[in-house]
Amino acid sequence: MAFGHIYNFSIGRFIMDIIPQHGGDIYRFAKACGCEVSEVIDLSSNINVIQPNITIDFNTLDIAPYPNYEQLEEAIANRYAIEPTMLELFNGATSAIYSLFRSLKTRAVTLYAPLYGEYSKASKLYGYNIHLINRFEPIDQEVKEGSLVIFVNPSTPDGQYHNIDRLMQAWIKKSCTILVDESFLDFTPYPSATPYLKTYDKLYILKSMTKFYSAAGMRIGALISNTTNIQQIKAQEPLWKISQFDSHYLQAALRDPLFAKTTQSITQANRAFLIQTLEQCPYVAKVYPSTANYLLVKLQGITAPTLQQHLIPHKIMIRNCANFDFLDEQFVRIAVKEITLLKKLEHALCEISI
Amino acid sequence: MAFGHIYNFSIGRFIMDIIPQHGGDIYRFAKACGCEVSEVIDLSSNINVIQPNITIDFNTLDIAPYPNYEQLEEAIANRYAIEPTMLELFNGATSAIYSLFRSLKTRAVTLYAPLYGEYSKASKLYGYNIHLINRFEPIDQEVKEGSLVIFVNPSTPDGQYHNIDRLMQAWIKKSCTILVDESFLDFTPYPSATPYLKTYDKLYILKSMTKFYSAAGMRIGALISNTTNIQQIKAQEPLWKISQFDSHYLQAALRDPLFAKTTQSITQANRAFLIQTLEQCPYVAKVYPSTANYLLVKLQGITAPTLQQHLIPHKIMIRNCANFDFLDEQFVRIAVKEITLLKKLEHALCEISI
Repeated sequence: MAFGHIYNFSIGRFIMDIIPQHGGDIYRFAKACGCEVSEVIDLSSNINVIQPNITIDFNTLDIAPYPNYEQLEEAIANRYAIEPTMLELFNGATSAIYSLFRSLKTRAVTLYAPLYGEYSKASKLYGYNIHLINRFEPIDQEVKEGSLVIFVNPSTPDGQYHNIDRLMQAWIKKSCTILVDESFLDFTPYPSATPYLKTYDKLYILKSMTKFYSAAGMRIGALISNTTNIQQIKAQEPLWKISQFDSHYLQAALRDPLFAKTTQSITQANRAFLIQTLEQCPYVAKVYPSTANYLLVKLQGITAPTLQQHLIPHKIMIRNCANFDFLDEQFVRIAVKEITLLKKLEHALCEISI
Repeated sequence: MAFGHIYNFSIGRFIMDIIPQHGGDIYRFAKACGCEVSEVIDLSSNINVIQPNITIDFNTLDIAPYPNYEQLEEAIANRYAIEPTMLELFNGATSAIYSLFRSLKTRAVTLYAPLYGEYSKASKLYGYNIHLINRFEPIDQEVKEGSLVIFVNPSTPDGQYHNIDRLMQAWIKKSCTILVDESFLDFTPYPSATPYLKTYDKLYILKSMTKFYSAAGMRIGALISNTTNIQQIKAQEPLWKISQFDSHYLQAALRDPLFAKTTQSITQANRAFLIQTLEQCPYVAKVYPSTANYLLVKLQGITAPTLQQHLIPHKIMIRNCANFDFLDEQFVRIAVKEITLLKKLEHALCEISI
């Protein structure tokens, strides 16, 4: 049988080997399973299942000249109702995080956790003293004066949207530098923190373009702040870093007039289906409230690695949340994808007997 | 007439406005000239005029999943006869320069100048004490013990290839960290410094993929060193930064079996034509020896901005070299392009009368 060889490994070792901590490495998963990459049902990464209507021919793009990002920056600025001088593009949100952490003067950071693992990595890399606040407990703890505050809204890995008005007041009172990571906000109908840019000068807002625009292979993220802050960041960045292919893909995606609304309504419908599926599963203790395209699930009677192993014959990848702060092997994250794929998950879950 | 409005500006101001210091900004040039971008004859940037035979359909690429760079890294490693663990990819050579300057411990740098302007910028940004050595004078000056040495081979803006064996011995004797920038080496038949990686552990080699592979819109550069150095650099870099489009473009380009040889022979032939053209021009005092796809020209009886202005009605952009160390407004750099375009330059030069 196709998956025979993998049972020679112990569960822990095998899962560690084929499912990397960040999720989404379908190449390694497919290789280990002996199947085609296209056969993998990837519920481990949070890429939008809806794809924008791209009406350009990439084969005819002239990529010889040095790129110019004016049109792309204007399109993004227009999308988020800011000026083009208020953003700097990066090769994905992670590149932006690294650059910001590097450039700031403070070396104290408050992470509202659990959150995207690269924040801890950047904190350690640049010598930040980390203060963790558990988002699943009352979050109105005091933050350190002048520290960098990281708040992901909606959060990962659970997808909860927080009204951060009260928190903002507390952070501002402490003169904190604030990064609100809104990489998944476009999946929701909720408002951005951008209006605060008018009244507070130590605020940064991060937008990942890879998740919402359904293209993790397109490396674009945008860091938004006031013009002065962005000028300071630009001075430390190379003139050219974004691919012309990626730039044209994103410009075309931004021109799709129905994309945002369609994504929001389909995500909502499919999420409801997935919640129902999971709540009927005897191994699910709790599904956390989510406004995004993924769900955090607390398991019972099974651990995350064991569940992952049971899903391998079905070629389904899910995310073990054990490496998130305040979570352990009782937690998995499952992406909201097409109903047909979610039905395959439903079928696979029904087959599990321990 | 189409270019009428531009003569309202003074020459200096106008040239500064439309021809940025780095060259290659055809968008701004076309806009100021009121012509289409496709009409501009760009002899200011050093992009290969030969394009690789790309046999993939970019419209059918699945860019939704997170990228995996294994195949690309293997193809590049294979091209340069190194192991895949001996390279880190960046979004162009400039990104690699910034990362390397940031990560090194020394804060003294020896720049063999004139050279690519981003080296000075990176040196200043990261607080390096700069020691310049003029390549147009005897270059066997002593370098500072333990400093970072930057040597571009073949050089910019002149294109001379140096046999660096003696220099390497001197640098190694001083325990320098060495960066040999071989961004234009593939245009020549000359050997790389990669064999030194086996015997000296503080050596880095930089390869820009944008110039040779004729795609400045494809943002890929490779920093090559021993596996230990590369591991240390990787630890400070995001997991994903290269576009999947770019990755596939470069993999396809690397598969073209005739591309390197064709480029070398056509570059050599067209360069000979351009040299002949320039040597017949009364405004040319000297054409510097070059092994690359560009020529450094010393002018007489005309300055670089004036020459640039005379070429505007012909929609021809060339590079003013005044912002290179040890050069001034008597120097321009002209790219080796198609013979038809070089003939247009020849025609334009013949029309100049001052």
